[in-house]
Amino acid sequence: MQKVGFVGLGLMGLPMARNVLKAGFPLVVHNRTRAKAETLAAEGATVVDSPAELAAQCDVVLSCVPGPADVERVYLGDDGVLARARAGQLLCDMSTIDPDTQRRIAAAAEAKGAAYLDAPVSGGTSGARDGTLSIMAGGSAEAFAAIKPVFEAMGKSIYHVGPIGAGATVKLVNQMMGAICTLGVVEGLVLGARAGVDPDLLFDIVANSSGNSASLRGAAPNILKRNFEPGFTLDLMQKDVSLAVQMARGLDVRTLAGSLAEQVIREARAAGLGSRATFALVQPLERNAGVEVRGKEAR
Amino acid sequence: MQKVGFVGLGLMGLPMARNVLKAGFPLVVHNRTRAKAETLAAEGATVVDSPAELAAQCDVVLSCVPGPADVERVYLGDDGVLARARAGQLLCDMSTIDPDTQRRIAAAAEAKGAAYLDAPVSGGTSGARDGTLSIMAGGSAEAFAAIKPVFEAMGKSIYHVGPIGAGATVKLVNQMMGAICTLGVVEGLVLGARAGVDPDLLFDIVANSSGNSASLRGAAPNILKRNFEPGFTLDLMQKDVSLAVQMARGLDVRTLAGSLAEQVIREARAAGLGSRATFALVQPLERNAGVEVRGKEAR
Amino acid sequence: MQKVGFVGLGLMGLPMARNVLKAGFPLVVHNRTRAKAETLAAEGATVVDSPAELAAQCDVVLSCVPGPADVERVYLGDDGVLARARAGQLLCDMSTIDPDTQRRIAAAAEAKGAAYLDAPVSGGTSGARDGTLSIMAGGSAEAFAAIKPVFEAMGKSIYHVGPIGAGATVKLVNQMMGAICTLGVVEGLVLGARAGVDPDLLFDIVANSSGNSASLRGAAPNILKRNFEPGFTLDLMQKDVSLAVQMARGLDVRTLAGSLAEQVIREARAAGLGSRATFALVQPLERNAGVEVRGKEAR
Amino acid sequence: MQKVGFVGLGLMGLPMARNVLKAGFPLVVHNRTRAKAETLAAEGATVVDSPAELAAQCDVVLSCVPGPADVERVYLGDDGVLARARAGQLLCDMSTIDPDTQRRIAAAAEAKGAAYLDAPVSGGTSGARDGTLSIMAGGSAEAFAAIKPVFEAMGKSIYHVGPIGAGATVKLVNQMMGAICTLGVVEGLVLGARAGVDPDLLFDIVANSSGNSASLRGAAPNILKRNFEPGFTLDLMQKDVSLAVQMARGLDVRTLAGSLAEQVIREARAAGLGSRATFALVQPLERNAGVEVRGKEAR
Repeated sequence: MQKVGFVGLGLMGLPMARNVLKAGFPLVVHNRTRAKAETLAAEGATVVDSPAELAAQCDVVLSCVPGPADVERVYLGDDGVLARARAGQLLCDMSTIDPDTQRRIAAAAEAKGAAYLDAPVSGGTSGARDGTLSIMAGGSAEAFAAIKPVFEAMGKSIYHVGPIGAGATVKLVNQMMGAICTLGVVEGLVLGARAGVDPDLLFDIVANSSGNSASLRGAAPNILKRNFEPGFTLDLMQKDVSLAVQMARGLDVRTLAGSLAEQVIREARAAGLGSRATFALVQPLERNAGVEVRGKEAR
Repeated sequence: MQKVGFVGLGLMGLPMARNVLKAGFPLVVHNRTRAKAETLAAEGATVVDSPAELAAQCDVVLSCVPGPADVERVYLGDDGVLARARAGQLLCDMSTIDPDTQRRIAAAAEAKGAAYLDAPVSGGTSGARDGTLSIMAGGSAEAFAAIKPVFEAMGKSIYHVGPIGAGATVKLVNQMMGAICTLGVVEGLVLGARAGVDPDLLFDIVANSSGNSASLRGAAPNILKRNFEPGFTLDLMQKDVSLAVQMARGLDVRTLAGSLAEQVIREARAAGLGSRATFALVQPLERNAGVEVRGKEAR
Repeated sequence: MQKVGFVGLGLMGLPMARNVLKAGFPLVVHNRTRAKAETLAAEGATVVDSPAELAAQCDVVLSCVPGPADVERVYLGDDGVLARARAGQLLCDMSTIDPDTQRRIAAAAEAKGAAYLDAPVSGGTSGARDGTLSIMAGGSAEAFAAIKPVFEAMGKSIYHVGPIGAGATVKLVNQMMGAICTLGVVEGLVLGARAGVDPDLLFDIVANSSGNSASLRGAAPNILKRNFEPGFTLDLMQKDVSLAVQMARGLDVRTLAGSLAEQVIREARAAGLGSRATFALVQPLERNAGVEVRGKEAR
Repeated sequence: MQKVGFVGLGLMGLPMARNVLKAGFPLVVHNRTRAKAETLAAEGATVVDSPAELAAQCDVVLSCVPGPADVERVYLGDDGVLARARAGQLLCDMSTIDPDTQRRIAAAAEAKGAAYLDAPVSGGTSGARDGTLSIMAGGSAEAFAAIKPVFEAMGKSIYHVGPIGAGATVKLVNQMMGAICTLGVVEGLVLGARAGVDPDLLFDIVANSSGNSASLRGAAPNILKRNFEPGFTLDLMQKDVSLAVQMARGLDVRTLAGSLAEQVIREARAAGLGSRATFALVQPLERNAGVEVRGKEAR
């Protein structure tokens, strides 16, 4: 069985790595703050001190870290994966970053003879825990076929979406669409509340009408309960939407709504809401309109 | 059994009226172009020449017409419903218009002793045909209780959402949310296509991820097939979003995304797409980006 | 010499009417709150109780009131100007409203045989006081020639810009351009202040570079002094920009920036700034960014 | 007299360097395509093959190149200025780029003991030719005092605006303000034309009213003549506005209008207008509205 390495044991990476281990793969892990890695050591994983050391021992290297600079550090840093990558090795970054960075790292990996895939995921922390993530991978058909058994330990819907960068592209488009819907949700909820409509009822009706969206279903019940504990934070949403808008810039594609979403997220971050749930976007609008979208449970 | 009148036999009104008739209510109908009314005459309805004449004969008057000016004409015109309205009568407009106009007509109706409700619907022409519409009614609890049996002939999910104007408010919020999602859908699809991702695959993945929405499910399969035949036209979407944004203006609620949606719809209308399906919004973006979101079926 | 009537003695109308009187025209005035009219009575004007009464006595009727509903009341109301208008009379509204309303009133005036012009002004309260307004008139060439001597009592740059409605159109375009520049000014000032640049210096440099505008010259010195006393209020700016955006709606012209300006003004009004100067737009941005654009004089 | 080096002899750099030479400073020049440098050789300058070689010979090094990547190459490249920089030398980049890049290069320069300033200019090619540029410099007071005589050869209004990065900040704010005004200008002109107003007259009136701006004065006369020959191109405007919006992102400052300007510029670039004048922004709007802003001279 392939020996698997996993770099980056955050809210997503830790449960993803654990599922790889549970599926029976020998697992080596690395995390910047070692404490998180120790959790998995107790479950049978080997902990190492650098991505390079991890790469030296593994057939397959997976990574899941916050942003482009982190991915660059993991692969291209002094003690990064590529320092010890070799021909025949499978490298796969599962972070949500931009396609250009993925292509640059892929080129460097291929120069060492290693195969590289960009395979972001969708499904949140619960999908990561339950092994039900969607995985959208870019890279060669051969590399995809070879790594698929490992993906199957972590996800349920597994797609080969095209060459290197295609995974990142699909993920960023998804994130941008979701952010734009979220923007519509918070505007609509505040408008309804200000107009005096019962917000529980408004949610029930729209959730069964043409205005429905995954964003509405995810956001509205929590807003009604005044629960802004993050699954996914505004800071991360800002990163994703900014990357999508920058990708569009490079392609000269107009993204008026994507760009508006980025600005409204920025406004919420400036208001100190960056570490709250994405739908905390509603709060600056509520303050401005002098109204709260509060459901009967929270009254 | 209450004698019901129905004014406005368009794409929505005709099947709605037909379901009232099928449910066993004696039905009187009026339409500006009489030909459409004759269809229902063959099925047992009585055709009259004006809303006033219709009001003179019926216990319950329903109406479903395009915009605020049409609703005003139907109720407040020289031969309008209110010319013959009387105490104890139930009047209910089911068009999608603004709450202010509905409140103004309600006041005039009440001056005649008639009860008035605003009860827009959701569910499109198929919902109208199958009697599975959502109906969101504003008005007094008594009027709602009295008219409910008639609603049940036309719809499945029937809500009393508050006083007069509440139905219109909920509907406009729903329409605005849907339009904003549609805007995100077309931006995302064009961005993905321009970045070289397979659009069928992109749709499959996003439809199962956090970017999903009723707008995506409604729009993307048709865009992929290059089918822009309208269920719901851009002209009507423009009307609804404009009404939502104007409602927000009166309440001093910021609707950046709603307002952006209105502008982008306006641009598509100026490009001659007003009578096409709402998701024809994609076409100006495609032209600008030099790319088409075309699925494998349509290639 | 023509006998002139002036309806609407607000911040603009009072000094405009006074200049007509000073130029030697016999003057009749009407104002909703009579007290303001009495000021001019002391200077030689005759005060009457309604626009109709004023129309009955005058050869030329001028008006300057806040919005479309006010203009409609002045001309089309029960005791409005048109109730007593007659052939050969010159009627001229100088308010800033939409071209459609002006055309509707003009048609009604012409039905009485009176000539009607729409002639909004530019130049603010100081221009009104000093008789240096710009006047942009729409209407027939004959009517323009006939009324020109009266315009010359109030303004310096006097333009015949086309048929009825043309005056309103030019004025609304000017207002929209100015509002968009103001939006740019406040965004730029806040960005500069947040980036740590001295705001006095920033103003000096931009005012002499390609970023300069009448909006910058009008707004920045007052913002730096933290003086938000209105010449021109956000409430009035909102009215004008809304009218411009609605005019564009009727013509299917995309006005992304105009529409954004309207939204940002709406946000400022919701924050309670409607009666402050237009450049109080800066305040919500300052609060969000946690910074103030304060010049050395105000520190 | 200080020996001056100038790197980057483009539309701006060539006349700027020539003015340094005319003022009597011994001049060394370098340009990627040597041909342009030879023009100045004929006038007395020395031509060298790399920024490093230039730095080796000069007391003061100036540079003016298109974007951040170019500035990085000039200073930090293998044969860049810093390869031969030394204590006591004055280095000054006059390009329009972002403050972060300037700060990074400044830190590297200081590590070699050299002083570094960022000093972008305003005034266009005519200002460069006539020596009447505005120069806005960031850096230490000592460095500014030492380099001022060289600035005086190129510009008329010379400002020390703060520490390193302040020059770039002021310039980007100016560029963003100008782009936003330009956006307002083209929207307003198209709206006016579509509403049937004479565009020459519209320009005359607005240019003397509250809607006036440097953007209007620069753009409208050329649009009326249908002259889109660039002084300043949309490609460069896109670069500047993108840098401003990215600077704002790093500071969490909301720039709704700046961001909208970026999107509309992007749209014009996608339509093939990148190398045209900035006010070619008007063309996609004209096409959409089915109207042209054409003055009487060009009819």
